[in-house]
Amino acid sequence: MDEFELIERWLERLPVPGSGVLVGPGDDAAVLVPRPGHRLVVTTDAVVEGVHFDAGRVPPAAIGHKALAVNLSDLAAMGARPRWSTVALTLPPGRLPWSFLRRIADGLGALARAHGVAVVGGNVSAGDVFSLTLTLVGEARQVLRRKGARPGDRILVTGTLGDAALGLASLAARSGPPRRMSVLEARQVRPTPRVEMGLAAVGLASAAIDVSDGLVQDLGHLLRESGVGATLFAHRVPRSRAYQRATTDLGPALSGGEDYELCLTAPPRKVPALSRRARALRLRLTEIGEVDESGTLRILDDRGRPIRLAQVGYTHHTLTRTGRGRRRRRGAGRC
Amino acid sequence: MDEFELIERWLERLPVPGSGVLVGPGDDAAVLVPRPGHRLVVTTDAVVEGVHFDAGRVPPAAIGHKALAVNLSDLAAMGARPRWSTVALTLPPGRLPWSFLRRIADGLGALARAHGVAVVGGNVSAGDVFSLTLTLVGEARQVLRRKGARPGDRILVTGTLGDAALGLASLAARSGPPRRMSVLEARQVRPTPRVEMGLAAVGLASAAIDVSDGLVQDLGHLLRESGVGATLFAHRVPRSRAYQRATTDLGPALSGGEDYELCLTAPPRKVPALSRRARALRLRLTEIGEVDESGTLRILDDRGRPIRLAQVGYTHHTLTRTGRGRRRRRGAGRC
Repeated sequence: MDEFELIERWLERLPVPGSGVLVGPGDDAAVLVPRPGHRLVVTTDAVVEGVHFDAGRVPPAAIGHKALAVNLSDLAAMGARPRWSTVALTLPPGRLPWSFLRRIADGLGALARAHGVAVVGGNVSAGDVFSLTLTLVGEARQVLRRKGARPGDRILVTGTLGDAALGLASLAARSGPPRRMSVLEARQVRPTPRVEMGLAAVGLASAAIDVSDGLVQDLGHLLRESGVGATLFAHRVPRSRAYQRATTDLGPALSGGEDYELCLTAPPRKVPALSRRARALRLRLTEIGEVDESGTLRILDDRGRPIRLAQVGYTHHTLTRTGRGRRRRRGAGRC
Repeated sequence: MDEFELIERWLERLPVPGSGVLVGPGDDAAVLVPRPGHRLVVTTDAVVEGVHFDAGRVPPAAIGHKALAVNLSDLAAMGARPRWSTVALTLPPGRLPWSFLRRIADGLGALARAHGVAVVGGNVSAGDVFSLTLTLVGEARQVLRRKGARPGDRILVTGTLGDAALGLASLAARSGPPRRMSVLEARQVRPTPRVEMGLAAVGLASAAIDVSDGLVQDLGHLLRESGVGATLFAHRVPRSRAYQRATTDLGPALSGGEDYELCLTAPPRKVPALSRRARALRLRLTEIGEVDESGTLRILDDRGRPIRLAQVGYTHHTLTRTGRGRRRRRGAGRC
């Protein structure tokens, strides 16, 4: 199979459902029909070999999954319905076998289908390093912002935090790919973006952000954009059973990254409705703090004593920004 | 200046005008207001160091210019109005000086301003190779397609062809960056996308494609998608004075790539109106052939004898696809 054929076949594995797609791949550009009265919500994120994943330690399907998941998580944090995506792929010619590329497409395709996302266009370039850059377009009548949190609002978080950071450490300690991934490793490798919860939170939450760079750092962005402060009760931050078995340290739950959970704020009277919607989605939603006027983020332990974190945010080697204040640093060569 | 600061400053140089932008960079995603009754037109394209440009031979501003120009050209070929763009940047940490990055932003920003394009979101990753992936979103009430050409339609092309290919050869023969670029080199390095002509052609042209991979190859895509054939009069293909001074060979005009001109088809009765619109835009528009039912592309010389091309399309080392049939190959290390 030559390179041309390989690319044809790669893109053919991705879904192009008809919903709102007038012209899909095959012309100079895709043509889409936005729903009247809706706004467009657009985000872009890349995964780069050797920076965001180590091909030797992660199943290829997970690379495709995660490339879309990180973008879906951004739309979830805006309360938007994901609809269309473009994919720009850089391929080191001849270095990646078809079986590897096929599995990447399958991982991406499966998640796209699950969320009704059509892959409407693509671009494939040669390049020394494998990378996958997705742009995701969604729709919303009304969006959630990072700004909007007000003193008295409760701070809530979906799911459990810190699992992905512990999973990353566990994967990094291996010499090859695991035969069977632990719960923590799976959380790192195949995150579940909280798209439905983001949609359910519109009209109830006062502000939202996804937890990609660590709770303290991301909550800090939300508070700064909202011009408020908050108190965070560290012992309330939800940790999974696997986490609690692995460590008693709260650090990964407070500062670990890549869980792709949602952090929401809401006035107390709206918290019951938010909780009901989370329950309907079988999603854990935990109140972990309260917004105040202080302008700073205080973190208290279970006896009410302030905690000082050694590490405020998850330090990625990668620098990421969907906008101001969105940056990551992450060790090259980690998976 | 650390890496974080560098990225802040880079993105600050790009325009985020207010038109249709409810939320720009600074949140989890951008929020845009599409015009009622318009369709979205979306394309993505990347430029990769060592594949699409050689940083030692091309001015940095031209890299930013071209990254946007190739996407603008795709929207031009659809007859769409470009509006919003996202930028995903991969940076080799510490290897690129600020002055270089700043100039890339300035080249991109100047062309974005000229076309009223807002850069609404971005992503910056570390990576071993510098690359720039743009996704461009435009709007149109009605679009031009590759399909739609009918027997009897005239084939027209904007501007002159082959300049960029000759410019590339000229740059490749240099050992360093030119102090002053020749006309041909400038056509290669800073192409002018025909956005206004694309818009002007809606309702008149029956089909359109941009000439990025060589006239014969791109016209071939248009004919295949339309299910027709054509006769092309090689001696009518417009060549610039600089081209004619450089060579009498028709090859680069027929098979050279990266001119980013438009190739249009239109029924004879609509050609005068198309020509008037081109004149109003001070753009050359040349009739170069006629669509027929043959299903193949015949190329005739000035005596009516068939020409066989040694090289059908422009061979890039890069593989590009906005959809089926959109592929490029191009020598690595060329600029």
